[in-house]
Amino acid sequence: MSEQTRRIVGFDPGLRVTGWGVIEVSQGKLIHIANGAVKSNARLSLAERLLELDEGLRDVLLQWQPREASVENSFVNKDGAATLKLGQARAISLLAPARFGISVAEYAPTAVKKTVTGAGHADKRQILAMLSMLLPKADINNEHAADALAIAICHAHMTQNLTSRVKAVL
Amino acid sequence: MSEQTRRIVGFDPGLRVTGWGVIEVSQGKLIHIANGAVKSNARLSLAERLLELDEGLRDVLLQWQPREASVENSFVNKDGAATLKLGQARAISLLAPARFGISVAEYAPTAVKKTVTGAGHADKRQILAMLSMLLPKADINNEHAADALAIAICHAHMTQNLTSRVKAVL
Repeated sequence: MSEQTRRIVGFDPGLRVTGWGVIEVSQGKLIHIANGAVKSNARLSLAERLLELDEGLRDVLLQWQPREASVENSFVNKDGAATLKLGQARAISLLAPARFGISVAEYAPTAVKKTVTGAGHADKRQILAMLSMLLPKADINNEHAADALAIAICHAHMTQNLTSRVKAVL
Repeated sequence: MSEQTRRIVGFDPGLRVTGWGVIEVSQGKLIHIANGAVKSNARLSLAERLLELDEGLRDVLLQWQPREASVENSFVNKDGAATLKLGQARAISLLAPARFGISVAEYAPTAVKKTVTGAGHADKRQILAMLSMLLPKADINNEHAADALAIAICHAHMTQNLTSRVKAVL
């Protein structure tokens, strides 16, 4: 990894499933490194589920050693219980990298969709189609991992003047 | 601390201030051990603030060595942004003890108020008045620490047939 290479992790937080995706930006190009999802067991207590997510994300950070992290700035909907649950899961995605001294950027869902597909209201199918062009070598495990890769790409795009595939494709 | 003595921490979660209070239950009596609050710096990023809370609560757990933890099951209000923020702070109060293998119980605010004052809709003044009777030796730092002590007392009461001051006073 040269000094010019940036390794970025994206997290798509959720209490049941938190998606993660790691990419590199090297010489203005995006490279897929790995992706996956960390799950929590719904039969455990909330504290134990948060611990499962925390340990899972810590393992991802230890294994893939990203230097930058990005998290979706979750949608606030009208269901208070769902929002509270999402907030709790989201805290883990923010805290896990912070404990390694990794800075964490936050992006609104519309910013993520717009960066990856060119449209703020793209659906999951459109995001997957664009991901297969931006990261052709990625074998994407599931929709949460796909969202996490999109968040990592959004961060790469927002923080660098890329002469990258992102711009080339857009 | 005899085997019959239980040491309990209560947390009152908040992003700006998380209150904490440690009590013991020994031979059916409540004993105040310590209380305080962990604050986060509003000028830092959200991830850094959660890290501050996490480190602060870890220090409390290391210093006071409770065996049981209890957290208020926060009120879900109509303000989605506030609920998301509370959810994030709350995750830290749940995760910190879980990482030490300490079980974490959750109680609704009305249950906490009812246990301590006998009324589900007691105000802060009433809670403070009852705390001064239940824990006469406690020098209570602030309202967040007071709420945290009330949560710890609620847990003690809910999990044991106390011939305690709680019942005596109620």
